[in-house]
Amino acid sequence: MKIDRIEHIGIAVKSIDQALAFYEGVLGLQCYKQEIVEEQHVKTAFLQLGNVKIELLESTWDQGPVAQFIAKRGEGIHHIAYRVESTQEALQEALDKGLPLIDQTERDGADNMKIGFVHPKGSFGVLTEFCSEKVERT
Amino acid sequence: MKIDRIEHIGIAVKSIDQALAFYEGVLGLQCYKQEIVEEQHVKTAFLQLGNVKIELLESTWDQGPVAQFIAKRGEGIHHIAYRVESTQEALQEALDKGLPLIDQTERDGADNMKIGFVHPKGSFGVLTEFCSEKVERT
Repeated sequence: MKIDRIEHIGIAVKSIDQALAFYEGVLGLQCYKQEIVEEQHVKTAFLQLGNVKIELLESTWDQGPVAQFIAKRGEGIHHIAYRVESTQEALQEALDKGLPLIDQTERDGADNMKIGFVHPKGSFGVLTEFCSEKVERT
Repeated sequence: MKIDRIEHIGIAVKSIDQALAFYEGVLGLQCYKQEIVEEQHVKTAFLQLGNVKIELLESTWDQGPVAQFIAKRGEGIHHIAYRVESTQEALQEALDKGLPLIDQTERDGADNMKIGFVHPKGSFGVLTEFCSEKVERT
């Protein structure tokens, strides 16, 4: 698999506004965008650090995946996203190598990306995302 | 605080050898170094991806901090390390801003770094490390 770089680190928080007091107020990073991803029931906030983003995730629904993660494990690091050329091809390669997937097919994510997740059972406890830029099909 | 970049992401695993089957065998990354940090009771394995490292952490003692993390939360992402100019100054700045620290004073870490941790209570559940290159004092 050809991985370009770590695209972002996803962090589950109860409140983006409160967490920004740490990421902006203490670490000195800057949030450049907030975006709601309806399908995932999350509000996201992005901070750039070099060519890696930190993506804060706040649930917009108390039964959503991020709310469930926090209920089970508390606030904390939620996933690592690797930038690949094609999310669909990366998912297929992981599947071919016997890994359990959350997504069999790439889907739309935040920040204009196609995304797909490997199940943490197959990646030693780390929820692992592949992402690639959306290609406009004309 | 002046943060240069994310230096590494620490991932707690039961077995580095087994986890490398995923990180090398599936993701295609390469482990360039393994190192034991006696003081932390861990064996570490480093993989480089762009200018960010993935640091796999395997406990060498069943009562060590990584063993305790896995016992409580399972394998998974353990911490984020930010590269700063001076770990000691970053710890002091975090303290001045009211954050609880694990380390009041910088100490030796793996890969020739001075390191120090903020307590996750102060950083919304994310164990946060500052690190800077060791300066040889002659």
